[in-house]
Amino acid sequence: MTTTAPRIGAFTPGPRDSIADVTGVTVGHCTLADGPIQTGVTVVRPHAGDAFRDTVPAAAVVINGFGKSVGLMQVNELGVLETPVALTNTFAVGTVATAQIRAAIGANPEVGRTAATVNPLVCECNDGYLNDLQALAVEAAHYDAALHAAAAEFAQGAVGAGRGMSCFGVKGGIGSASRIARTGAHHWMVGALVLANFGRPAALTIAGRPLGPRLVERLAAGGTAPRDQGSIIVVLATDAPLDHRQLRRVATRAAAGIARTGSNFGHGSGDIALAFSTAQTIPRASPAAIWTLRVVDEARLDPLFDAAADATEQAILHALFAAESVAGFAGHTREALTALLPDWPELLR
Amino acid sequence: MTTTAPRIGAFTPGPRDSIADVTGVTVGHCTLADGPIQTGVTVVRPHAGDAFRDTVPAAAVVINGFGKSVGLMQVNELGVLETPVALTNTFAVGTVATAQIRAAIGANPEVGRTAATVNPLVCECNDGYLNDLQALAVEAAHYDAALHAAAAEFAQGAVGAGRGMSCFGVKGGIGSASRIARTGAHHWMVGALVLANFGRPAALTIAGRPLGPRLVERLAAGGTAPRDQGSIIVVLATDAPLDHRQLRRVATRAAAGIARTGSNFGHGSGDIALAFSTAQTIPRASPAAIWTLRVVDEARLDPLFDAAADATEQAILHALFAAESVAGFAGHTREALTALLPDWPELLR
Amino acid sequence: MTTTAPRIGAFTPGPRDSIADVTGVTVGHCTLADGPIQTGVTVVRPHAGDAFRDTVPAAAVVINGFGKSVGLMQVNELGVLETPVALTNTFAVGTVATAQIRAAIGANPEVGRTAATVNPLVCECNDGYLNDLQALAVEAAHYDAALHAAAAEFAQGAVGAGRGMSCFGVKGGIGSASRIARTGAHHWMVGALVLANFGRPAALTIAGRPLGPRLVERLAAGGTAPRDQGSIIVVLATDAPLDHRQLRRVATRAAAGIARTGSNFGHGSGDIALAFSTAQTIPRASPAAIWTLRVVDEARLDPLFDAAADATEQAILHALFAAESVAGFAGHTREALTALLPDWPELLR
Amino acid sequence: MTTTAPRIGAFTPGPRDSIADVTGVTVGHCTLADGPIQTGVTVVRPHAGDAFRDTVPAAAVVINGFGKSVGLMQVNELGVLETPVALTNTFAVGTVATAQIRAAIGANPEVGRTAATVNPLVCECNDGYLNDLQALAVEAAHYDAALHAAAAEFAQGAVGAGRGMSCFGVKGGIGSASRIARTGAHHWMVGALVLANFGRPAALTIAGRPLGPRLVERLAAGGTAPRDQGSIIVVLATDAPLDHRQLRRVATRAAAGIARTGSNFGHGSGDIALAFSTAQTIPRASPAAIWTLRVVDEARLDPLFDAAADATEQAILHALFAAESVAGFAGHTREALTALLPDWPELLR
Repeated sequence: MTTTAPRIGAFTPGPRDSIADVTGVTVGHCTLADGPIQTGVTVVRPHAGDAFRDTVPAAAVVINGFGKSVGLMQVNELGVLETPVALTNTFAVGTVATAQIRAAIGANPEVGRTAATVNPLVCECNDGYLNDLQALAVEAAHYDAALHAAAAEFAQGAVGAGRGMSCFGVKGGIGSASRIARTGAHHWMVGALVLANFGRPAALTIAGRPLGPRLVERLAAGGTAPRDQGSIIVVLATDAPLDHRQLRRVATRAAAGIARTGSNFGHGSGDIALAFSTAQTIPRASPAAIWTLRVVDEARLDPLFDAAADATEQAILHALFAAESVAGFAGHTREALTALLPDWPELLR
Repeated sequence: MTTTAPRIGAFTPGPRDSIADVTGVTVGHCTLADGPIQTGVTVVRPHAGDAFRDTVPAAAVVINGFGKSVGLMQVNELGVLETPVALTNTFAVGTVATAQIRAAIGANPEVGRTAATVNPLVCECNDGYLNDLQALAVEAAHYDAALHAAAAEFAQGAVGAGRGMSCFGVKGGIGSASRIARTGAHHWMVGALVLANFGRPAALTIAGRPLGPRLVERLAAGGTAPRDQGSIIVVLATDAPLDHRQLRRVATRAAAGIARTGSNFGHGSGDIALAFSTAQTIPRASPAAIWTLRVVDEARLDPLFDAAADATEQAILHALFAAESVAGFAGHTREALTALLPDWPELLR
Repeated sequence: MTTTAPRIGAFTPGPRDSIADVTGVTVGHCTLADGPIQTGVTVVRPHAGDAFRDTVPAAAVVINGFGKSVGLMQVNELGVLETPVALTNTFAVGTVATAQIRAAIGANPEVGRTAATVNPLVCECNDGYLNDLQALAVEAAHYDAALHAAAAEFAQGAVGAGRGMSCFGVKGGIGSASRIARTGAHHWMVGALVLANFGRPAALTIAGRPLGPRLVERLAAGGTAPRDQGSIIVVLATDAPLDHRQLRRVATRAAAGIARTGSNFGHGSGDIALAFSTAQTIPRASPAAIWTLRVVDEARLDPLFDAAADATEQAILHALFAAESVAGFAGHTREALTALLPDWPELLR
Repeated sequence: MTTTAPRIGAFTPGPRDSIADVTGVTVGHCTLADGPIQTGVTVVRPHAGDAFRDTVPAAAVVINGFGKSVGLMQVNELGVLETPVALTNTFAVGTVATAQIRAAIGANPEVGRTAATVNPLVCECNDGYLNDLQALAVEAAHYDAALHAAAAEFAQGAVGAGRGMSCFGVKGGIGSASRIARTGAHHWMVGALVLANFGRPAALTIAGRPLGPRLVERLAAGGTAPRDQGSIIVVLATDAPLDHRQLRRVATRAAAGIARTGSNFGHGSGDIALAFSTAQTIPRASPAAIWTLRVVDEARLDPLFDAAADATEQAILHALFAAESVAGFAGHTREALTALLPDWPELLR
């Protein structure tokens, strides 16, 4: 992704500086952009295979639970993902969850019959400023389209689930980044993908510099009165071999990355972080009663924690710098950050 | 409800021995019973008003998180219910959640526009033995029908969401009970409603007596080989003034009631308890910055805990004794407990 | 242990029917019994080696958090035990924790210098009815004595930390039991040790039979007015290879065993369950950056859950049937259960 | 406290810019500074009365659980503080907890007899670089001294529990700050007190500016090789009427303040936040079965969240700028931040 966002932190990004630097992870979007309908679906696939048959270790952390995600409870009980991760708007969660069930049945006709039921996993943010939420425009086919579009190269900004999202009073949406964490002789990739829809303009902080006050001036000049609600979903992927408990610890560090952009996890914000490891899969129909799992030694986790926080912060910046201006529902518009602050390079000096 | 189930415990039930003994609480069903389709929706309304505008204090407890409920996260963050509680089958959760959103919009056109979005609350069990889960037969209209049918008098057993459920290898479903808890001069009503779909036949315990071995014999004679998966949803209501934290403590006690019927909260079981208080409502559009809440003194909670455990156990028995035999999907049948153990009164002696 | 307690459940116990059936686990007591001082310390060692250098996977579950245990937070963050498990009275927790620190320093002079600090792990119940709690009689040497006394053969009842405990209005204390869980070709041992100090007389249930009402009669005849506070600590051990998350699931099942003896987890009860696996140790000073762990396939956990619940229930019965009558502080006495209900075999028929 | 630390954030501090701006809150230290012994105890009293008889609403949040605090479990079950909050070094927790028990008994002879037992509340960080941890130098009398020294005016920096603490490779310790949060016509005070013992030098961030690289240079010039372990305890107080659940939400926001100073909550860090409200007390011996509580309307919490995050960040800066250089155990020294970076005002420009 060729955004010109400033790079934060001391870690080296992967070649794409996106979650797809974690080998096997792909991302797909379905974008709805038609007048008052500015919304969509984004899907993160943990690997190219069937996520129901070959699950991956995972954990979810609720930073602030004002949100309507589905599937987190079972992720934390069983410690695995069994579908791709779907992102969409708040009122589309039920529709997308049902689409995930249908997709799992299509690929595995035994789901809910001879096999267990499937656990849909859908996270959401509220895009109601730009998108006519009450129109319930997202349909099952949009999930399918996003799933089938999944690839290692994917767009960022005002696309997919990010189409109608707002962030710090400007246009938000999908952002992604990666960082390489070194522990001894090992190099691990940590990738983040965010659905960024949070933050008050006055609080915007980029690379530690408070750009918020300047942003507030520019927004006031434009007459916009941004609403103060929002949420952020953070999806973290790594090729380091980590178990559920360790992934829960990694996901907790997303909060640090979010905080450094200027958020205190507002009351109305559904701030959720999800982490999974691609280092090994756990087959559902296991012939063996005992598994062998590889895990990183606990005392060597810090570089992974730091990489997770930095990748999260960088992904938020990528969302802000990639998102173009969007006009939508009720005549509302969100300007691109770079349109309002074209002088950002000087402001960061 | 005129079931002949044995009464357990030392507490006195309310006049209906159902959750509707908590003043204002009503229950409605929509039952689908047509060949391979044996499923439905059950709705518990906390009061006669609008649940979005006038919320009630609530808390949810996950005993075993192998389940697909939606809405629990926000209940535990904000400490309130803002919709009726919906129960249905595992694959209908998304559809019913969307129906709840539509119903909230219908009643409150500002939802997701000038007001916050609404938090759907749907819990589920897997009725795939008797019901063709993959047919996804539940539609939004079925939620609406259950909601509109809500009344203080309601059927139990193989009705609503309970239509296709199995319990201890026999027919399960909806059961309800109530108990009066006394603390000093106060009398509080505690009601329970369960969606009972759990338990291995060998473990069935009624009023402390292990009927499981006898049940296994009778089931073997009939050639049935019951599957061993399941779940239970427990909804607890009380007119005692309790806050979120106290309701979480009350909901925890549902586990004791479940355990005494013979369950150890099996791996594949989504065992969830939800508790709410009707003692006061919290208006969404609050003119006042500070609220006054009444709460029971902490040291006086034990009778409420005991009543919650007993009402849960009793509600499970009511489900088992009320449920009629049902034949459904793939030629599967679940017999009524009383059909298999007509001699239960002697067995309990 | 030659108690004559009725055997509950369908599983087979190990040869000792105690937690020491899990190979390597040993238990030691130090008992203080001198007039108003009726208290002590009990220690469960996970293996014969150094618990700080060779940790074992572990998890803790808080059923009701009215308690003063120390060390549970770090067990759940890092997923391991790094000391033996100590049990004592409520006011001795600080003293025993300090003794654990001194013992770890003695065995590992680098603790808190070149190595990390050690996480003491001490759980407690309130023995203030029989023991003069305010005398703070437990000293560091008593922990050391219990540690050094640890053996596969150990006493139960009114010994060690159990010396002053009460249960259902009669004498409680230490109890232990084991059950063999079979999954396919594997046989796993699950052991439980309880410090039982909970329950109202009226609620006592043995093997499903409500003996409480009869017990209340006998207690009333003796003029005793039992207090209604208490707690239970459950320590579960297994040789099945389980990780932290799975051990958390196993520990959750202790609640079912407790409930079946007649408890609803009273307001004033600190009900805590702790589980650890001896299948492998995790060396603190790891030369390798990546570990290999064995874990049981998730879908095969149910026998372990059932064995944990049954071993817990059986251990409580062992405590009740092993404990002799004790007189202590302020002229208080707790009678042995078998002294008050010598006709219990008939009552259970 | 006349530190010259830069002021962060947009909120106005209270008159003292310390936790004592919350009316009734006082802080006391006992400092041990004698060669290899560089440690102590700090106590935060929620009000001038007896904390056992008149409890205050409280909640604790574990950000990273590599720590040995005692008492958090019961705070979260019952939702109240019942002792002052004590801070000390890792190996002194048991001793200080026992001192709290003795103090509670002294003030309330019925504790553990006719009244319930008391829940000690002690949090800790590891000061083993400057302090001879293994000497276990803290005694019960030091807790008593800190308690009796409690006052609205109190020292910051290398005092009390902060005496031996390190932070970002320089001298850390005790810091405090306050912020005024406005919701409508209401002004609430939010105060923070931190025991700051965390952070790698390279990550130090002050007011958004990365001073870490410069600090690393200066430390290298001095030949110091700072260890990378640590922890932070954050105590938040407010006069806003908040219940346990709301205080849990407030405490969660401490993580944002910590993150903005350059921490990702390292693996070895026990990062704990505790929040309490002084708006009303809850008497233990309640004649009334039902209480009336005042709580802030949920939708008006954001200013309190923001104030909590800012007060936490400011308190960390106060600790860093107030702490003088300290030499202690094994010839180790920690320089004051201002000694190593005397040019910090220019660096922040």
